[in-house]
Amino acid sequence: MATTHLLTPPRLHLFSPSSAARLRASASLAHPLLHSRLRLAARPSPRPRRRAMSTTVRSSLIDPDGGALVEIVAAPDRRAALRAEAEQLPRVRMSLVDLQWAHVLAEGWASPLRGFMREDEYLQSLHFNCIRLPDGGGLVNMSLPIVLAIGDADKEQIGDKPDVALEGPDGGVVAILRSVEVYPHNKEERIARIWGTTAPGLPYVDEAIASAGNWLIGGDLEVLEPIKYNDGLDHYRLSPRQLRNEFDKRGADAVFAFQLRNPVHNGHALLMNDTRRRLLEMGYKNPILLLHPLGGFTKADDVPLPVRMEQHSKVLEDGVLDPETTIVSIFPSPMHYAGPTEVQWHAKARINAGANFYIVGRDPAGMGHPTEKRDLYNPDHGKKVLSMAPGLEKLNILPFKVAAYDTVAKEMAFFDPSRSQDFLFISGTKMRTFAKNGENPPDGFMCPGGWKVLVDYYNSLQAEEAVPAPAPV
Amino acid sequence: MATTHLLTPPRLHLFSPSSAARLRASASLAHPLLHSRLRLAARPSPRPRRRAMSTTVRSSLIDPDGGALVEIVAAPDRRAALRAEAEQLPRVRMSLVDLQWAHVLAEGWASPLRGFMREDEYLQSLHFNCIRLPDGGGLVNMSLPIVLAIGDADKEQIGDKPDVALEGPDGGVVAILRSVEVYPHNKEERIARIWGTTAPGLPYVDEAIASAGNWLIGGDLEVLEPIKYNDGLDHYRLSPRQLRNEFDKRGADAVFAFQLRNPVHNGHALLMNDTRRRLLEMGYKNPILLLHPLGGFTKADDVPLPVRMEQHSKVLEDGVLDPETTIVSIFPSPMHYAGPTEVQWHAKARINAGANFYIVGRDPAGMGHPTEKRDLYNPDHGKKVLSMAPGLEKLNILPFKVAAYDTVAKEMAFFDPSRSQDFLFISGTKMRTFAKNGENPPDGFMCPGGWKVLVDYYNSLQAEEAVPAPAPV
Repeated sequence: MATTHLLTPPRLHLFSPSSAARLRASASLAHPLLHSRLRLAARPSPRPRRRAMSTTVRSSLIDPDGGALVEIVAAPDRRAALRAEAEQLPRVRMSLVDLQWAHVLAEGWASPLRGFMREDEYLQSLHFNCIRLPDGGGLVNMSLPIVLAIGDADKEQIGDKPDVALEGPDGGVVAILRSVEVYPHNKEERIARIWGTTAPGLPYVDEAIASAGNWLIGGDLEVLEPIKYNDGLDHYRLSPRQLRNEFDKRGADAVFAFQLRNPVHNGHALLMNDTRRRLLEMGYKNPILLLHPLGGFTKADDVPLPVRMEQHSKVLEDGVLDPETTIVSIFPSPMHYAGPTEVQWHAKARINAGANFYIVGRDPAGMGHPTEKRDLYNPDHGKKVLSMAPGLEKLNILPFKVAAYDTVAKEMAFFDPSRSQDFLFISGTKMRTFAKNGENPPDGFMCPGGWKVLVDYYNSLQAEEAVPAPAPV
Repeated sequence: MATTHLLTPPRLHLFSPSSAARLRASASLAHPLLHSRLRLAARPSPRPRRRAMSTTVRSSLIDPDGGALVEIVAAPDRRAALRAEAEQLPRVRMSLVDLQWAHVLAEGWASPLRGFMREDEYLQSLHFNCIRLPDGGGLVNMSLPIVLAIGDADKEQIGDKPDVALEGPDGGVVAILRSVEVYPHNKEERIARIWGTTAPGLPYVDEAIASAGNWLIGGDLEVLEPIKYNDGLDHYRLSPRQLRNEFDKRGADAVFAFQLRNPVHNGHALLMNDTRRRLLEMGYKNPILLLHPLGGFTKADDVPLPVRMEQHSKVLEDGVLDPETTIVSIFPSPMHYAGPTEVQWHAKARINAGANFYIVGRDPAGMGHPTEKRDLYNPDHGKKVLSMAPGLEKLNILPFKVAAYDTVAKEMAFFDPSRSQDFLFISGTKMRTFAKNGENPPDGFMCPGGWKVLVDYYNSLQAEEAVPAPAPV
């Protein structure tokens, strides 16, 4: 009797010469290496693309899921007609989180999905973390349901009308949802299957599910115009199409994505630089890093997006990461904190933006259990699940090497278990505690410019807290 | 913009001529139609199969998952050596439910799984309801984790030893588990992801998870000899191999499976007979029904297996189902009551036994929510999820037509919504209430012989309850 594993082990052995050769063969350079002057992100294009939907891409980048990038922002010459049409339709008000998902859908991060999920898609996402393409086209990964909840009054108003106008949080019409399907929103089942717990205190549940309506509405989305937030950061919000164009412009023959929702310290930078080195060793000529902070909903004690973006820009200014081979851009998705289920979404969306390598760390998208003194997820499950997920076979998973502060070398270094006593682990919580208390972390933990951004942020918080509350009248 | 569904609708349109022709083409008769004298189930073979593992099957039946049926009962000439080996190994005691799963594994109902799941398999089952075959062999469905829980003391005892002996509930050695892997048993996550709820009162959780150990142990199973229960029903427990042989003997060119854990009433019989009629219309010459009651753990208020088997045998004696084209056999799996997740297991296991058609009803494997006044699952989700499940593409799903008591025709008939007032729905609960109270259901609801079995059972229960408890000493 065989005593070996019958079933496939995780696809984590990535730097084998054979896979490198295979990957190179399918990623030959389309044009010579171009260094862009763009430092952080593409500035808004002076001549906006008129008909993105009909543009064909000539690129050696990884194919989007389903073969073609979904782009469902209406062409400018259709907008007036759509606005007029929307006036006649039932209207549904979206929350900010809903709007973030509409943004995600509009730009094709969730390709091949063309709108909020109908029930067939929802059930496949919930049960299988993947969705079947039509006509035997195989499976694409889709681990988080992208759904829109409505209440009883909305459902009544819609009746059997096929199309619905979607308003943003400010009441303006954002999109039309067509051929809608309304189906029950079983919140308990949704939460249990996504998070593997129904304990109270899950941030996304509290924000976007607990008080949401008891129905879900799916359909084909047509967004009237590109979604903007006017927060001074829109120029960082490159769409998958814009990122692909930028990677092509730079002549990338490999794109490695780093998802984060925390400040970048020198351990992260070490990892990213080391990844580039390893990709060069594999034979790639121009690996480009997509440093891709998550920009949608995050929990209250995470560092806010504007502070993180300022911190990231200091990291590049200070030369910790090379601006020539790095693109910093905002990933518009909200955060679920759903561990192994969510990390698949984080990876899948980056395929659609052109990334063929994805760096995965310990406990990705994890957090503490909301009611028990333990991690909500086994810290190893994220990368295991990711490496086995249906629909992600074409993505190369790069497991995160553990970096820690080397008290001898006085810098962040890859952890060496043979002299573990020399290393100091500085968690995100510890880092925030340092910054809150005005303490300095050890030299070499983070570039001084980046650290100052954090200290200033926490000082400003304390200043706010110190302002006396208005006296009761 | 297209307003059609982008993604594939459920595969529920089964009786189209083209699919019928395709299926026929791949299921041509291997030998002429044979009528067996076997009425209910194969009796124990007088000459037991010696080397099932090396037998090749010549059959036109659907392939088992993974291409070959797993059979991991040791050949008789190995048993003495295995018993001697087991004496030297750490020992783990299995519960009755664990033993039922060992039985399921030993006979290949879970092919291609060769033992209790290691963590890679467990995580794939939990997150994707399917498992990847090695070397790009695609996905097989595997919606329920088949795992063995152990406690801290067992884990300690095993240490880093590779092999473990498994004892049955009575202490006798049943199997050896090889190349074991021990990993954490996160019960909350397991329950939430399988059932979509963590509410207290789930029968399988109470029976087999809540008080189970905090570790899971996976490995390759080698069972010493066929698992028997000595309850007078073992002759009904045909393995997938035995069922395949029987289907071949009868010259089946289609096998349609009916999973049940309730008595058979005339509505069920109508459906099964109608399914056979439709398969004949499609061009099949000899469709065989596998009437396949679940024989493992069921909840306390379900009708016990021996009573159900007696009831089923009366249904065949009374001629409600045709013994010539029906095989009644016991499916050894325990019941999870996990609705859409479990129905995939019920279907997948029957593929391994040779069934290429699976009848699915309303709310399969469903039950009431344990703490809320509603069904635990949306009654339509079972068949929807089943029809979209990865790894089940080769199975033909037959949705259950609703039968009810027609008060005009005085018989069970397919529900006709145009004269809904004529129909009476008799649920399992109502049926049990009739039988408990000694009331008769309407004429034509169930054959009299079958009904008498139920009445006698409930009378015996009441007689037991009426016996005064022994007075305290």
